[in-house]
Amino acid sequence: MESPLVVASNRGPISFDVGEDGELIERRGSGGLVTALSDVFLRDDITWISSAMTDADVGVAQEGRELMVEPGLRARFVLIPEERYGAYYNRIANQILWFAHHCLWDIARSPRFDDDTKHDWRAFVDVNRAFAQTLDQEEDEPVFLVQDYHLCLVPEMLRDLRPDAKIVHFSHTPFAAPMYLRVLPVEMRTAIVRGMAGADIIGFQSRAWGENFLLSAQGLAGVHVDQRRGRVDLDGRRAFVRTFPVAVNAGSLRGTAARPDLKATAKEIASWRGDRSMLLRVDRLEPSKNILRGFLAFELFLSRYPAWQGRVKFLVLLSPSREDLDEYRTYGEECLAQAKRINGEFGDDTWEPIDVRVQEDYEYAVAAYSNYDALIVNPVYDGMNLVAMEGPLVNRRQGVLILSRNAGAYGRLGKHALPVNPFDLSETADAILQALEMPPDERARRARGLSRSVQAHTPATWLTDQLEAVDAVRPPMIGR
Amino acid sequence: MESPLVVASNRGPISFDVGEDGELIERRGSGGLVTALSDVFLRDDITWISSAMTDADVGVAQEGRELMVEPGLRARFVLIPEERYGAYYNRIANQILWFAHHCLWDIARSPRFDDDTKHDWRAFVDVNRAFAQTLDQEEDEPVFLVQDYHLCLVPEMLRDLRPDAKIVHFSHTPFAAPMYLRVLPVEMRTAIVRGMAGADIIGFQSRAWGENFLLSAQGLAGVHVDQRRGRVDLDGRRAFVRTFPVAVNAGSLRGTAARPDLKATAKEIASWRGDRSMLLRVDRLEPSKNILRGFLAFELFLSRYPAWQGRVKFLVLLSPSREDLDEYRTYGEECLAQAKRINGEFGDDTWEPIDVRVQEDYEYAVAAYSNYDALIVNPVYDGMNLVAMEGPLVNRRQGVLILSRNAGAYGRLGKHALPVNPFDLSETADAILQALEMPPDERARRARGLSRSVQAHTPATWLTDQLEAVDAVRPPMIGR
Repeated sequence: MESPLVVASNRGPISFDVGEDGELIERRGSGGLVTALSDVFLRDDITWISSAMTDADVGVAQEGRELMVEPGLRARFVLIPEERYGAYYNRIANQILWFAHHCLWDIARSPRFDDDTKHDWRAFVDVNRAFAQTLDQEEDEPVFLVQDYHLCLVPEMLRDLRPDAKIVHFSHTPFAAPMYLRVLPVEMRTAIVRGMAGADIIGFQSRAWGENFLLSAQGLAGVHVDQRRGRVDLDGRRAFVRTFPVAVNAGSLRGTAARPDLKATAKEIASWRGDRSMLLRVDRLEPSKNILRGFLAFELFLSRYPAWQGRVKFLVLLSPSREDLDEYRTYGEECLAQAKRINGEFGDDTWEPIDVRVQEDYEYAVAAYSNYDALIVNPVYDGMNLVAMEGPLVNRRQGVLILSRNAGAYGRLGKHALPVNPFDLSETADAILQALEMPPDERARRARGLSRSVQAHTPATWLTDQLEAVDAVRPPMIGR
Repeated sequence: MESPLVVASNRGPISFDVGEDGELIERRGSGGLVTALSDVFLRDDITWISSAMTDADVGVAQEGRELMVEPGLRARFVLIPEERYGAYYNRIANQILWFAHHCLWDIARSPRFDDDTKHDWRAFVDVNRAFAQTLDQEEDEPVFLVQDYHLCLVPEMLRDLRPDAKIVHFSHTPFAAPMYLRVLPVEMRTAIVRGMAGADIIGFQSRAWGENFLLSAQGLAGVHVDQRRGRVDLDGRRAFVRTFPVAVNAGSLRGTAARPDLKATAKEIASWRGDRSMLLRVDRLEPSKNILRGFLAFELFLSRYPAWQGRVKFLVLLSPSREDLDEYRTYGEECLAQAKRINGEFGDDTWEPIDVRVQEDYEYAVAAYSNYDALIVNPVYDGMNLVAMEGPLVNRRQGVLILSRNAGAYGRLGKHALPVNPFDLSETADAILQALEMPPDERARRARGLSRSVQAHTPATWLTDQLEAVDAVRPPMIGR
């Protein structure tokens, strides 16, 4: 546990701009993964390696420099030519791998792989290799913590460069079932599974995703899998599949919520709500989040239980996401059109049923958390889902959580939430009713259960569990 | 192996019409499943139970009659009110279960379950129960052979009525991966897995589908699964998962191909082909068959290898399928529009690259089989695929088979075929080139391999393997 840590992720916690006098100005990163990881990794003695995002980052990368961001945190950048970044990030990672792991294709029509895909894949391989080479420049014997599907090839590449390295790969997303991973060209799916299996520990948010990985590994030539022990043997190496559900930092989140400016925003939202009940959703505007069916279920709820018309407001906070991808833009437009239609059919001068705000504003979301009576988190599939954990920590109205059975968070929070099948409008509409009409004592009991379950796990545990898992399979005393 | 056999399937091998003098007139059924099964099951001493499809069938069913169709074949019908049949067959079986098992949903948008789904599901349960009750009227100790996803609840229902019954359920389709089966409402997916597990033997076309079933069973409360042995224990009963790939009857198929009328048709097709090469596809017009990407891959082939323009004709025989479902109609229109567009871009007065015929004409397809230089079978997912087996038996030009790795038939024929990832247009275009330009000795070797592999298995083996599997787990000597 004494080893220094080296984290690799596509985006880092920090970027730089060049100031007027040529000095570097820090810019804190945003986005779910970075926020979650920053809380965990910003401890003593850590080096964080990520893609150079700005001109200043590129400058730092070109000089091969390492920047001391704050005591104990060093940042280093991997230089990726812009054209290659588009292929690696937009096309392979976001348009193919994200869709594979979340089952998002309309299989009869998409995807269609062609020579462009091959070209993009080569860029993806190159970027992963550049990360592996940068990691290999680290001295001492660190533990390498490689994050997510963007860097799924890094563990094997790093292993080839540095056979004794201690490597953990962690997937923040689900992992596709074998039948769905087979959609990918053979070369890609083989490289992904072999790439991840280059780690000592292959971490997932929930057992189900790890099982999918093991099943796909089992199908590869020369690989031996022990499903029960979560063990993968190939090329004379051994990797272990383990589950490490991420956690949120309750103290820091509540600190944020308690800031005077957020309290003022929370008050504004409370007065917007008035004496009505408030249903809330907070999400990236993203097809896997199931925003469309969320609206349709709310519509079904209003038409099935008309006594609730005029008595509930649905606040929908959506942060823009990957707007340069057609699939995202189209999906976003469909969502907004449905909300508008529903408002047209049910609303009047005194009441707008759904209030959608497309904005990048984390603080506003935290302020909204304190105000909901019910929070709906109904993704079609989700690695974990942080909103489901953040909401109950901040909420002050003993709000009820409506939670998809297909979110990783369901394993931890399911018994205190109202479970829904995200594809079932009828079940979701009834869950909204049940949430809004729940007797106070049951609300209180469930809210307490949620809050305790979330706090039972901390980001520190998530990290130390991974480090202990590495130590267990590479005992330091063997003296490599 | 001495037990009489009782087969249950949604459609039977035979229907009746009422003639002018009130007599019953036989009408042989068509469709892939029925054709395949008729070859197998039309042996001594069999009772075939299916849905009443015509007014005459209904009459027979209402009288509770059993009809001797020919020596050894008795037919019996299950009476299903028309409204209920639509819910059971169109909406649950074809629009939901077929889509689940073939991964066909555009998950971000469909399916959307609601109260209509619940209502339809009740009809599905009722129809399955009606089948189970009809099966239970059989005397002696037959082996019950229950076919396909339409009747997936029958085994458990029959088991409840008749605890000692010998029951085999066989799936002609793939079986959804757990992550995809979870799309279904909990009640449905639980009932499906428990329903099938009511059989002694749960049969699939390939190991992969059986593994998916076992994984879903593992997730159910009170169920114990031994994945390696393919064993499912629940409610004090035990079921075994086994693989029985279906086979085609080579003798009867070649007999059909040798009929003078088919030979005449084959000649017509040969003269239509002329001295050009011929690429063939034969399919139901169905999203899982991947007709759309087949056209796009052919287009890529023509534009990438322009020397082939004017030198190859693509004959596409599509039998209409489920035209009353929107998803099918839309998909069919998209396919035809693409073919038309490609013909417009590449064709001229002397050459039409793609000739699409939408027709229900099995004999024409058999005649076409004899003429192809390459046969493309590229389904996104397919339980088995009979076309891939029929073509090589009849073809007389040492034609090459281009075969999707996701078809069950790939397990048996893969090493003699040119494998393709059905989503990869580039790989498919190159496979077309490789097929059309393959040297004669390699063509001959592969064609021989295909034909031998197909003939190594017979429909009789498929059936006796199932009966032996039942005998093995319910030894007759125990004297129940």
